[in-house]
Amino acid sequence: MEKLKKYVSVKDEDHFYHQGAVELLIFNFLLILTILTIWLFKNHRFRFLHETGGAMLYGLVMGLIIRYMTKSPDVESGTVYECEKLKSGPSTLLINITNQVYEYQYKREISHHNVNGHQGNTMLQKMTFDPSIFFNILLPPIIFHAGYSLKKRHFFRNLGSILAYAFLGTAISCIVIGLIMYGFVKAMVHIGQLKQWEFHFTDCLFFGSLMSATDPVTVLAIFHELNVDTDLYTLLFGESVLNDAVAIVLTHSISIYSPKENPNAFDAAAFFQSVGNFLGIFAGSFAMGSSYAVVTALISFMHLTKFTKLCEFPMLETGLFFLLSWSAFLSAEAAGLTGIVAVLFCGVTQAHYTYNNLSPDSKMRTKQLFEFMNFLAENVIFCYMGLALFTFQNHIFNPLFIFGAFVAVFVARASNIYPLSFLLNLGRKQKIPRNFQHMMMFSGLRGAIAFALAIQDTNSQPKQMMFTTALLIVFFTVWVFGGGTTPMLTWLQIRVGVDPDEDLKANAASQSESSLDKNTTKAESAWLFRIWYGFDHKYLKPLLTHTGPPLTSTLPEWCNPVARLLTSPSAYGDQLKDDDTVYIINNEVLTENCESSAHIPVPAQDSTGSIQATGKEDIQEGDLGLGGYKLQLQHTAGQLQKNSSA
Amino acid sequence: MEKLKKYVSVKDEDHFYHQGAVELLIFNFLLILTILTIWLFKNHRFRFLHETGGAMLYGLVMGLIIRYMTKSPDVESGTVYECEKLKSGPSTLLINITNQVYEYQYKREISHHNVNGHQGNTMLQKMTFDPSIFFNILLPPIIFHAGYSLKKRHFFRNLGSILAYAFLGTAISCIVIGLIMYGFVKAMVHIGQLKQWEFHFTDCLFFGSLMSATDPVTVLAIFHELNVDTDLYTLLFGESVLNDAVAIVLTHSISIYSPKENPNAFDAAAFFQSVGNFLGIFAGSFAMGSSYAVVTALISFMHLTKFTKLCEFPMLETGLFFLLSWSAFLSAEAAGLTGIVAVLFCGVTQAHYTYNNLSPDSKMRTKQLFEFMNFLAENVIFCYMGLALFTFQNHIFNPLFIFGAFVAVFVARASNIYPLSFLLNLGRKQKIPRNFQHMMMFSGLRGAIAFALAIQDTNSQPKQMMFTTALLIVFFTVWVFGGGTTPMLTWLQIRVGVDPDEDLKANAASQSESSLDKNTTKAESAWLFRIWYGFDHKYLKPLLTHTGPPLTSTLPEWCNPVARLLTSPSAYGDQLKDDDTVYIINNEVLTENCESSAHIPVPAQDSTGSIQATGKEDIQEGDLGLGGYKLQLQHTAGQLQKNSSA
Repeated sequence: MEKLKKYVSVKDEDHFYHQGAVELLIFNFLLILTILTIWLFKNHRFRFLHETGGAMLYGLVMGLIIRYMTKSPDVESGTVYECEKLKSGPSTLLINITNQVYEYQYKREISHHNVNGHQGNTMLQKMTFDPSIFFNILLPPIIFHAGYSLKKRHFFRNLGSILAYAFLGTAISCIVIGLIMYGFVKAMVHIGQLKQWEFHFTDCLFFGSLMSATDPVTVLAIFHELNVDTDLYTLLFGESVLNDAVAIVLTHSISIYSPKENPNAFDAAAFFQSVGNFLGIFAGSFAMGSSYAVVTALISFMHLTKFTKLCEFPMLETGLFFLLSWSAFLSAEAAGLTGIVAVLFCGVTQAHYTYNNLSPDSKMRTKQLFEFMNFLAENVIFCYMGLALFTFQNHIFNPLFIFGAFVAVFVARASNIYPLSFLLNLGRKQKIPRNFQHMMMFSGLRGAIAFALAIQDTNSQPKQMMFTTALLIVFFTVWVFGGGTTPMLTWLQIRVGVDPDEDLKANAASQSESSLDKNTTKAESAWLFRIWYGFDHKYLKPLLTHTGPPLTSTLPEWCNPVARLLTSPSAYGDQLKDDDTVYIINNEVLTENCESSAHIPVPAQDSTGSIQATGKEDIQEGDLGLGGYKLQLQHTAGQLQKNSSA
Repeated sequence: MEKLKKYVSVKDEDHFYHQGAVELLIFNFLLILTILTIWLFKNHRFRFLHETGGAMLYGLVMGLIIRYMTKSPDVESGTVYECEKLKSGPSTLLINITNQVYEYQYKREISHHNVNGHQGNTMLQKMTFDPSIFFNILLPPIIFHAGYSLKKRHFFRNLGSILAYAFLGTAISCIVIGLIMYGFVKAMVHIGQLKQWEFHFTDCLFFGSLMSATDPVTVLAIFHELNVDTDLYTLLFGESVLNDAVAIVLTHSISIYSPKENPNAFDAAAFFQSVGNFLGIFAGSFAMGSSYAVVTALISFMHLTKFTKLCEFPMLETGLFFLLSWSAFLSAEAAGLTGIVAVLFCGVTQAHYTYNNLSPDSKMRTKQLFEFMNFLAENVIFCYMGLALFTFQNHIFNPLFIFGAFVAVFVARASNIYPLSFLLNLGRKQKIPRNFQHMMMFSGLRGAIAFALAIQDTNSQPKQMMFTTALLIVFFTVWVFGGGTTPMLTWLQIRVGVDPDEDLKANAASQSESSLDKNTTKAESAWLFRIWYGFDHKYLKPLLTHTGPPLTSTLPEWCNPVARLLTSPSAYGDQLKDDDTVYIINNEVLTENCESSAHIPVPAQDSTGSIQATGKEDIQEGDLGLGGYKLQLQHTAGQLQKNSSA
């Protein structure tokens, strides 16, 4: 007894002192190497291997070393024990071994052919970390950052097309991959590589949905560096960001879809339930994310103006911002919704409202913090993907399935981009040219999200096979397509070195010149957003931030007491700096009113005629010389004037 | 088979989707609550409950809710299975349950009387996170930040006393607690509460060492806010920071100490081996930490000057800084040394060298990043401590042991502070007054480190009893002593509202007036540091940073080619801004030379007579009108002059 105690205690102590340190050190080492490489690449303007590709390569080499250089130290493992009393695997197992009770925790199901081999290598086990770490810790900063740094003006210009690619495109891609894979699975069953009951059509669709998530990281980093044409950039950025959200919710919905009787037959009720699930989860997650952001905006706004100053303690402000945004993710997950969607829209809303309430110090702090976390998380994920090829212990390489998946992924991407672009071009004034379409086809990289969705569940053999295949597709697309981005841009003659703001102005200018011809399509698709932006500008912005016109001027007269209570004193001074909103309104007004703007007299209808310094300065700050814009500004300036003199 | 599969797969999916999200959300919620409370306290200048105390309180309440509001959902657990084939607990267990293999991972040993009860509550299990997370993730930023933000000039003025308190004091405290606890344990064995073989003298010493780690967080936060007398602040800060390191190494050394035969007898060989271990681990960790910092300094220095600019990419620079500092911790842990000591000295060295090489942007980024991580980690730890009282499932409350521990901790603190202060006052010119001694006695809070050391190993019954007791002591000291800090300061008439720099100058001035009497003790204890600082200033600073005199002027003539290679061009321009070093040299020179400084002629021996603008400006920047300081500066200025004209 005494001796055993000693043995166990010594073992544990060693266990506790170093547990995790070596594994974390390996990751640190990989990241340091990656950073030095990035730095080297940046200096030598080397673009054939992007940093993410580099991180993955280092991970791969490290995985190889760990797999073949470390030996299995634990003799006991590899042996399977029988336990007749148990009927299923409980999450915690208490076992009495020679009069001492030990606690064991459930880890996973192991397929029979993987029981031997490297099962006993504790180093490999430790390097394979819990998928929940991906979902709860590494993905949120990346997605939040995407939302937080979204360039709203470019995004909204192409919103229709982006939504079409993201929703319709992803659905098409999912179904096409699912169908092709089902064909391959049938073939595999036919030649005896797979048993019928192991792989249903829903499993194929599940694979289709997870392989439909395209990765924004690699291509966009290169695009950003090269200043590729803004429209192409925005289309790809918008598509890949929203498409991640769609693919995740789709995967979730499909995994819930469980037809009652025959799993291969089509069950209409279950199907519509899944579609309902999809819509419900998406809307719920959107609501969850936005409400957290609104709460953050309200807290920071109240502290900023009404009560005492939170902004005097930038650390607290940053902390609150960070924690509430993360909570948006976690609450959505805990509520059975999709955290990624919640955190994406939380990021967009935070940037739109809360950001304006922060002190200048906190603005910078939060921006740098999220940038840094995004950077680290991204590189950790890519290093880990490299590692996983050799350290993950339940790979199932099935050549036919892998071949099928490669075919399916490319066919699906093509049947997403080309038909949709054709349809969109029917409606778009500014067509999506052929070379953009080819580039979008080429940029369908699979990355972190596909990997995370695949690693989420590797408990059954079909899932393990999917994981292995997904990993290989990620490798291939990141290295080959990621590395080929620069040559492809040259080959497709896509212009680089464009200043996004210049480009937008030039576009707007050329539009205002050429758009004397009727442009009903755009005006029609835009009316909803114009209403939303008007509402946002008049009511939400003044309520949640200290930009925009004071509520006292936008709400009806009888609401004045409430409005005055809700308006910050600084709203009268600081307003009108919010150029994104104005830009969008302006842009729409422009498309609609560019003819009429010429003959509307400058002092607008309800202005009191006193257009003074404030208004004029603001016009200087915004975009220059656009009739609709001037109108808008002067309108507000007039109201302001009227209000402050009342 | 099919049905079981379904069951397992559904269970797992649910498992993976929400795993961790709820627990993380609880922590986020606690942290948000804490931040809002801090903000409220700061506004109302409420100081009877410090933020850490608040965090702990919230954790406690949440723990209570989780414990009594959630029910054990898993029927299986609580049942102990027999496994006759196993001889000891392997780290991974493969179990065949109804023809499917499941993998289980070793978690811990469970004492028999804790098998039932709340064992089956999975929520409680999930809230109890792995101690390795504490050590590898939460502690490093706190300790690094302590080192990074160390005010060197105040620290070094009191270095002798700080070292005495930290090394001798901790050893005294450890032995006193160990002896008193051994008495109580003997008594418990006598009345039959404990079996003889369960608790050795080494276990008592182990408890003594972990309870000797005083916490810098709570008291110092209040001191910092109130601007308490700088000497007292520095003494307490220095003591608690170094004492953590000492206590950790001591705990480690004691847990390694294993006398061959009778565990209660004194084994001289094993004892000296432990002392050797202690010194070896301390020195090794110190070396590890400093070398990582030196590597960071070299990388950032090289990039800054010789090669291309890393500082153009502040993100990469910050990332590298962060990862290398963390690697210092992890490498030390992986090498069997103490990461905390390594990361502490890494922080000090980073602040001394690397900080000077960073771009202004990175300087701010790193500072804010570490500040933020420190803030979060601190509050997470205190929340968790609150939670642990109710969520930890293997508590052993033994009233006699707890009472004994309380007595031991106070006696030990008293026998550390009062005798040492008496001895130190014999040597110190500026005595440590009685009220400072009482305040130091009172400020012996136990916090994060004591908790982390106790939770590290809770596998055996004595360790579980120690953990429970340590937790109660932490609660008591943080709430009672932490909350009583402000009244105690008033009661002891310790002055507050002191500007540290003003204070230092005033002290220096009064010293220069009054120190005409001989002060050999201080001069003697200071010569080592003077040599070190001279060396640092002349060789290390120029080699690792772009401050200090160029190497070409400090190295002998024949080294000139090497020196020129190693000196950055900017060293000639940017130097002499490094006032910490100069201040310390000056302060020592002052104590020694204040008589002679009057009759040393201003142009010093090897100056070439050309004391010009640069030198004079620097004198203005530093402390004013101190002879030794002028001498030093002019000496350097002269060399600079000589060198640049050569």
